Amino acid sequence: MLVFLRPDADAADRERVLALFRAEGIRADLRVLGAVAVVETPPSGNRLRDRVAALPGVERLESSESAAYRLAAGHGRTTRVPVGGTAFGDGSFAVVAGPCAVEGREVLLEIAEAVRAAGAHALRGGAFKPRTSPYTFQGLGEEGLRALREASDRTGLPVVTEVMDPREIPLVSRYADLLQVGSRNMQNFPLLQELGRQARPVLLKRGMSATLGEFLAAAEYVLSGGNGKVILCERGVRTFGDDTRNTLDLAAVPALRSRTHLPVIVDPSHATGRADLVRPMARAAAAAGADGVMVEVHVRPDEALCDARQALLPAELEAMIAECHAIRSVLANGAGLMTGAR
Amino acid sequence: MLVFLRPDADAADRERVLALFRAEGIRADLRVLGAVAVVETPPSGNRLRDRVAALPGVERLESSESAAYRLAAGHGRTTRVPVGGTAFGDGSFAVVAGPCAVEGREVLLEIAEAVRAAGAHALRGGAFKPRTSPYTFQGLGEEGLRALREASDRTGLPVVTEVMDPREIPLVSRYADLLQVGSRNMQNFPLLQELGRQARPVLLKRGMSATLGEFLAAAEYVLSGGNGKVILCERGVRTFGDDTRNTLDLAAVPALRSRTHLPVIVDPSHATGRADLVRPMARAAAAAGADGVMVEVHVRPDEALCDARQALLPAELEAMIAECHAIRSVLANGAGLMTGAR
Amino acid sequence: MLVFLRPDADAADRERVLALFRAEGIRADLRVLGAVAVVETPPSGNRLRDRVAALPGVERLESSESAAYRLAAGHGRTTRVPVGGTAFGDGSFAVVAGPCAVEGREVLLEIAEAVRAAGAHALRGGAFKPRTSPYTFQGLGEEGLRALREASDRTGLPVVTEVMDPREIPLVSRYADLLQVGSRNMQNFPLLQELGRQARPVLLKRGMSATLGEFLAAAEYVLSGGNGKVILCERGVRTFGDDTRNTLDLAAVPALRSRTHLPVIVDPSHATGRADLVRPMARAAAAAGADGVMVEVHVRPDEALCDARQALLPAELEAMIAECHAIRSVLANGAGLMTGAR
Amino acid sequence: MLVFLRPDADAADRERVLALFRAEGIRADLRVLGAVAVVETPPSGNRLRDRVAALPGVERLESSESAAYRLAAGHGRTTRVPVGGTAFGDGSFAVVAGPCAVEGREVLLEIAEAVRAAGAHALRGGAFKPRTSPYTFQGLGEEGLRALREASDRTGLPVVTEVMDPREIPLVSRYADLLQVGSRNMQNFPLLQELGRQARPVLLKRGMSATLGEFLAAAEYVLSGGNGKVILCERGVRTFGDDTRNTLDLAAVPALRSRTHLPVIVDPSHATGRADLVRPMARAAAAAGADGVMVEVHVRPDEALCDARQALLPAELEAMIAECHAIRSVLANGAGLMTGAR
Repeated sequence: MLVFLRPDADAADRERVLALFRAEGIRADLRVLGAVAVVETPPSGNRLRDRVAALPGVERLESSESAAYRLAAGHGRTTRVPVGGTAFGDGSFAVVAGPCAVEGREVLLEIAEAVRAAGAHALRGGAFKPRTSPYTFQGLGEEGLRALREASDRTGLPVVTEVMDPREIPLVSRYADLLQVGSRNMQNFPLLQELGRQARPVLLKRGMSATLGEFLAAAEYVLSGGNGKVILCERGVRTFGDDTRNTLDLAAVPALRSRTHLPVIVDPSHATGRADLVRPMARAAAAAGADGVMVEVHVRPDEALCDARQALLPAELEAMIAECHAIRSVLANGAGLMTGAR
Repeated sequence: MLVFLRPDADAADRERVLALFRAEGIRADLRVLGAVAVVETPPSGNRLRDRVAALPGVERLESSESAAYRLAAGHGRTTRVPVGGTAFGDGSFAVVAGPCAVEGREVLLEIAEAVRAAGAHALRGGAFKPRTSPYTFQGLGEEGLRALREASDRTGLPVVTEVMDPREIPLVSRYADLLQVGSRNMQNFPLLQELGRQARPVLLKRGMSATLGEFLAAAEYVLSGGNGKVILCERGVRTFGDDTRNTLDLAAVPALRSRTHLPVIVDPSHATGRADLVRPMARAAAAAGADGVMVEVHVRPDEALCDARQALLPAELEAMIAECHAIRSVLANGAGLMTGAR
Repeated sequence: MLVFLRPDADAADRERVLALFRAEGIRADLRVLGAVAVVETPPSGNRLRDRVAALPGVERLESSESAAYRLAAGHGRTTRVPVGGTAFGDGSFAVVAGPCAVEGREVLLEIAEAVRAAGAHALRGGAFKPRTSPYTFQGLGEEGLRALREASDRTGLPVVTEVMDPREIPLVSRYADLLQVGSRNMQNFPLLQELGRQARPVLLKRGMSATLGEFLAAAEYVLSGGNGKVILCERGVRTFGDDTRNTLDLAAVPALRSRTHLPVIVDPSHATGRADLVRPMARAAAAAGADGVMVEVHVRPDEALCDARQALLPAELEAMIAECHAIRSVLANGAGLMTGAR
Repeated sequence: MLVFLRPDADAADRERVLALFRAEGIRADLRVLGAVAVVETPPSGNRLRDRVAALPGVERLESSESAAYRLAAGHGRTTRVPVGGTAFGDGSFAVVAGPCAVEGREVLLEIAEAVRAAGAHALRGGAFKPRTSPYTFQGLGEEGLRALREASDRTGLPVVTEVMDPREIPLVSRYADLLQVGSRNMQNFPLLQELGRQARPVLLKRGMSATLGEFLAAAEYVLSGGNGKVILCERGVRTFGDDTRNTLDLAAVPALRSRTHLPVIVDPSHATGRADLVRPMARAAAAAGADGVMVEVHVRPDEALCDARQALLPAELEAMIAECHAIRSVLANGAGLMTGAR
């Protein structure tokens, strides 16, 4: 059993709960996770439910299972998450665009100007890159972060970049507006816990074989630490399919809508790994009610150091954005479309 | 090596090809598949390539691998498949709707009128149902087919229904306009071969764990038999996901576009198994460039004998169709959107 | 609700059950499946449970879900299925071996002699081959069946071969001792129903993405038709893995043991697609408690028309059989090992 | 192109390589990863292959793809990894056993004595637990580590425990003999890089949807940092299957054998999630040629704080070990069985 305490519960309230279990010889553990204080008991604690529920500082009792994402839970409304001068989850369709990796200052500035001109709302680019092999390009590190900052200052686009190591959060936070947690780290709990203590918003990508329940429970690690600014990103799951890099699970967008109030965006570039599929899948994401997309763009894809096959050209990005906005404008005339509700 | 003969090749042409291999001690098998005559040889036949290619009746030589779906292959244009008074693949967005199973004459007529009024283009309904358990409702059989025909005659909607057994094709063909091959039978080759000899168009649903290459090779079984009227249907693949019945692989729509000229529709009802996800996924299919959708509709879902949780109400169908058409109309103003090309 | 009638229930018993529902205005369908007579009702029939249960011909009432494989259900003992002069499920470890496809009379006789000498208990070989492409070798048909019969008569090994089409069952049954249903046809219900009316035993291979519940329900189609001689075969499931053709789900062996009394064998050849993995996986199958294995063997794998990469040489088969028997002999000294029970 | 330098290459050798590319206007990056120094160039560097290969400090040139696990690559022999007083990969079958989580000092000591008496070679137990939900038991932390150390000192069994955070490596290393990287962290590259700089051996568990190539490339992160003591652990992959928690990919054992010299063990507890399947799967692992197994054991499973359903009792462990050893002894009489080779 989990006993969630009220946000305003004080030390005396907590002690009262613990004392009740102690008196019955039941081990009860208090855990304070930034925003949330919870007392966990073994199954034997369940028989005290009524007495515990009546204590003054107690908010509610839940099973471990159902409580896994209580702060992330919700539907019918989406939480607005501001990022730099833009926002996710406010009913608009946000477009994050940029190269897979920051490869150098000049080319990044060139790409940043191009995506801004094409209508993007934020700039993406990797400075710390999770690479399958230890011998391949791992990103420019702080040099890449500096270039991202400069590109942001010039274009006004907020910067989204990945952080992989809890020890690098302070460094990355100095330069970035939105901290991305990649698929491989969706259940890197020390990283998530550390991000729960930050002020920067977090973009959490779904793991390659994560259920939606696990995805939301991972977000809960950040939320329960006190950082309520989490954006979810569907980026494809791993299946037997061999035509695309991953299988984009677009139904996850309305399915998440029915379970959470967090904004949900889609990454069709990593989901498909093919530039020719990015545009139709971005349109589909807009039609399915996503709060935005994140796509890879390069001015000269042939020179890209990674994922060249999935990068759009700026002109393709511009066409894609126009189509997505056209779809959203015709849907906005209906009622309740974006909720995914019947 | 596969030697494809020209459609107008005669017995003498064939004999000439076989004789050449025979003279070299190589076993070569002639196979005539309705529309296609092919000579297959072991790898040792490859060394005769040039001499074979020069023979009069020979169209071209191919490896077994690349030839797997030569009639289905194509891109840039979509073949129009007429079904009753409507058509698939002509640039419009076709909507097939109806109950999972035909449960009785009266309720079917009621549903048929409702889906026609909502704007559907064809009526679906199962008379022979593939059920996991032998003990549950297997469909009404010919009684169900008769009800479908009557509903079609009253509403003008062509009828789509599943055929599972090659022995039942003549019976089903008497009543139905479009013969559906279900996911479980995507690689039921005797069934596909028999359908290749029919005049009726075929709706081929993707297998639960079929690659697109296998999907197209399955279609090729019908095409090579002489029946060129095949419509493909993406209906979700099986993954670890537990929020939806299957995982809708919507990227398969543009990916198929780049490999085949056959029309591609989407079944969001079976893909998701949840009525609340059908509408956003139908919109997404329209945005991704599908040639249509097939959805389950019931006037009283609670009374449905199967798949009640995924059936739309007629009013929901009407709203869904309006949204899909709105999306298609804004996209049609752009150029080349429906090809899925970059 | 499903009402299962007693095997000895007569027409009057059945009518009494139907009449009871009719009197209440509830539609109840009688279905007679060879061995089993069942009455299916809509949920509204549940309120008559007690009255129905008290009727003379009624065996028991079940929900559709739990009844899906009632004849296949069981544990603690395995049903012995005799095939020609050998048997599956009698505690021994049966080895079925032979080529992927029958390629000709001479080579088959050569292989048959070799696998008999190596210690195999049955001969496998495909005469009707399910092939992804319509243009590749589809098997020798009846010519292949005749060769199998001759090989069987010479070696004394019973013959296992695939049947794909319900119309071919009489033909195949004339030549084969054990009728194989391939993975692609695990849910080809008309085929299974027809096999339920036969005297020949059936080897049912698990579908590429079938759960164990679906696998057992597919077996139930045969069992409920009156043919109780079904052997199950685990042959790998389809996953993202790229080192092997499929992913062998060996835990399915003890998991099936805990749910069914049917014998369970393993096909490591199709599961892995790699000859170098067949032998260790056959050993593992023996250690996990399987009732046997089916493996592909060829005297000259380089000449095989299909699946050359997964065929063992006869000498490798002999070593494999020796290892499997050694494992079984040391395990047989313990108690209860083969049940998979704790 | 990747240029691998010889272990004894000095600063002058490195500069010579870099200078050659510089002179051609090609950007070349030197990366020193503990044991390995590598120069990475863009594709344009390939045209200098011959000149680079002739330089004194150069060991060999490789493409990024093929070099991904060069230190892990190998077959035909297995590297012996000593852990405390025992060893993995020396031809014996090592058994690691213990509770899912350390729940308290007393119960751990009790379990440790029981698994030692049953014949285990090492003690497992989690002090830092990766849990899906932030609200459930996360392990006892350093208190748990202290208990593990005490249990090890009493029983003589080396301790295996998980480390999730690079910042905790020094702490965990003070108490543990073998540092486990869990499935969720298989591609936590900062963690792997840090472990590459340690003296302690590493037990790397396969990710839930990792290919074997990715698994080996993850091991390479540790190896290339200078820590050559890596043991691989197959623990099941995520599929559609619903009978077991994961799908044990036992063919990965011989498949890894053919690609790497690192020891490979199997975790049937997490792979199946069912105690009744652990024993047959441990036997199967022994038969497939694994270097050992890791299993969960508890003296009173009903009291376990996590994964109670998959814990063996000590008596079951003892029987399991006896069976595994019996299998290995009969196999050891053959030649080359454990290599997985044909």
